[in-house]
Amino acid sequence: MAQTGEEIQQGLRRRGAAILVIGDEILSGRTQDTNTGYIARWLAQLGIPVREARVVSDEEAEIVAAVRALSGRYDYVFSTGGIGPTHDDITADCMAKAFGTGITYHPTVHAELTARYAAMNIGTFNEARQRMARIPFGAALIANPLSKAPGFQLGNVFVMAGIPAVMQAMLEDVRPRLVAAAPLGSCTVSVYLGEGTIAAGLAALQKQFPDMPLGSYPFAKDGKFGTSLVARGSDPERLALVEDALKAMVRAAGGEPQ
Amino acid sequence: MAQTGEEIQQGLRRRGAAILVIGDEILSGRTQDTNTGYIARWLAQLGIPVREARVVSDEEAEIVAAVRALSGRYDYVFSTGGIGPTHDDITADCMAKAFGTGITYHPTVHAELTARYAAMNIGTFNEARQRMARIPFGAALIANPLSKAPGFQLGNVFVMAGIPAVMQAMLEDVRPRLVAAAPLGSCTVSVYLGEGTIAAGLAALQKQFPDMPLGSYPFAKDGKFGTSLVARGSDPERLALVEDALKAMVRAAGGEPQ
Repeated sequence: MAQTGEEIQQGLRRRGAAILVIGDEILSGRTQDTNTGYIARWLAQLGIPVREARVVSDEEAEIVAAVRALSGRYDYVFSTGGIGPTHDDITADCMAKAFGTGITYHPTVHAELTARYAAMNIGTFNEARQRMARIPFGAALIANPLSKAPGFQLGNVFVMAGIPAVMQAMLEDVRPRLVAAAPLGSCTVSVYLGEGTIAAGLAALQKQFPDMPLGSYPFAKDGKFGTSLVARGSDPERLALVEDALKAMVRAAGGEPQ
Repeated sequence: MAQTGEEIQQGLRRRGAAILVIGDEILSGRTQDTNTGYIARWLAQLGIPVREARVVSDEEAEIVAAVRALSGRYDYVFSTGGIGPTHDDITADCMAKAFGTGITYHPTVHAELTARYAAMNIGTFNEARQRMARIPFGAALIANPLSKAPGFQLGNVFVMAGIPAVMQAMLEDVRPRLVAAAPLGSCTVSVYLGEGTIAAGLAALQKQFPDMPLGSYPFAKDGKFGTSLVARGSDPERLALVEDALKAMVRAAGGEPQ
């Protein structure tokens, strides 16, 4: 069967990262995901753009399919959620399956968690909690300085906790494993004009700066409506250039840059 | 080439809805998406579960591929973002392309927006703003009571604005087009015990209530750590039954339901 352009496009590898959020609590609307935005801003400092994000449920087939699709397409995949002690925490097993490898209790992790639960008044290291020591074969651990149960890296997938504070701490252990580039910067020019008033000028600037994505975001402040224009790029000199051009454009449209 | 189990699974249709968030501003971390959670809670009242959510960039090939993948797999797709007047607002054209149809200025919409811009001091109805009147052939409009530029329904895809207040108003116009079922309800039992302490009891209850997904979510409150146990289902009697069972289980584990 002939592939359409989009199917070919979907199969193409893309530079950058994808985020995979695992958890029914996000899809039900019970919990507001904030990890995606945090990871995106954190990766931008390393010059790594996030190209796509997905949220999937706590179901093996869904997680495995998403891991395979994303890890095959992007340089890096960052997953959050599903590595706790309860029956719906199935991420580690799904990662092993997605990569066609096995999984068992990691001796160092098991020993460290045994010692931690023995030393602290946080419950017994029972069978459920021991599940947190299950790590796929060939995975490299990701340190968890807060609650010790680690994440892990399998291939180009970084498997992290869903709790924001733990996830954020884990990212710091991931940092040296990433190939960083020039940080992705941005500049913002806000003006009390409608999007539609400056759309033509913005489109013309986008043609003049094809390497720098220009975005336009309406806002309301103190009862007045305006638009924030955002340019992105990794070259500070070009960012300064486009900022000046944005300011000149909004002035020409009758506005005053804020 | 033989399909793996996951590829077959990914190709299977699933009951329920998917959400497609379109916009670089979400992927860059500049804007926090809240539409996903809102849509999920809104759909739960209609008994329609959200199975998957994706965030894609303002790029035609990415949007088209995601629309085709999700609309082919789920009963409904709800998209947000990319229907404004600026050059990066390409959602309408991408929807037309995904469904293999054309797109042009919708006469009624164009006339209404012409009258609105003539009557109000909100700028001229220039070429950029006229783009908001472009609607794919065969689409049904979705009313926008706030700022008038409409969304539209094409097949099983509901195309809405990204601005939360506008998106929320558009959902109300969508409501009568959906086949509602018994509302998806939930009950929550919170307790000051660690997840790992009640994991075995929770897993046993999940086997007893296989039709009701049970989730476990750690929390911290007033310096104390606890776990919220959440059951989901559409039968109020069964929800009451599982709530009693959850309370009995946490008491047996030494905790007091909050």
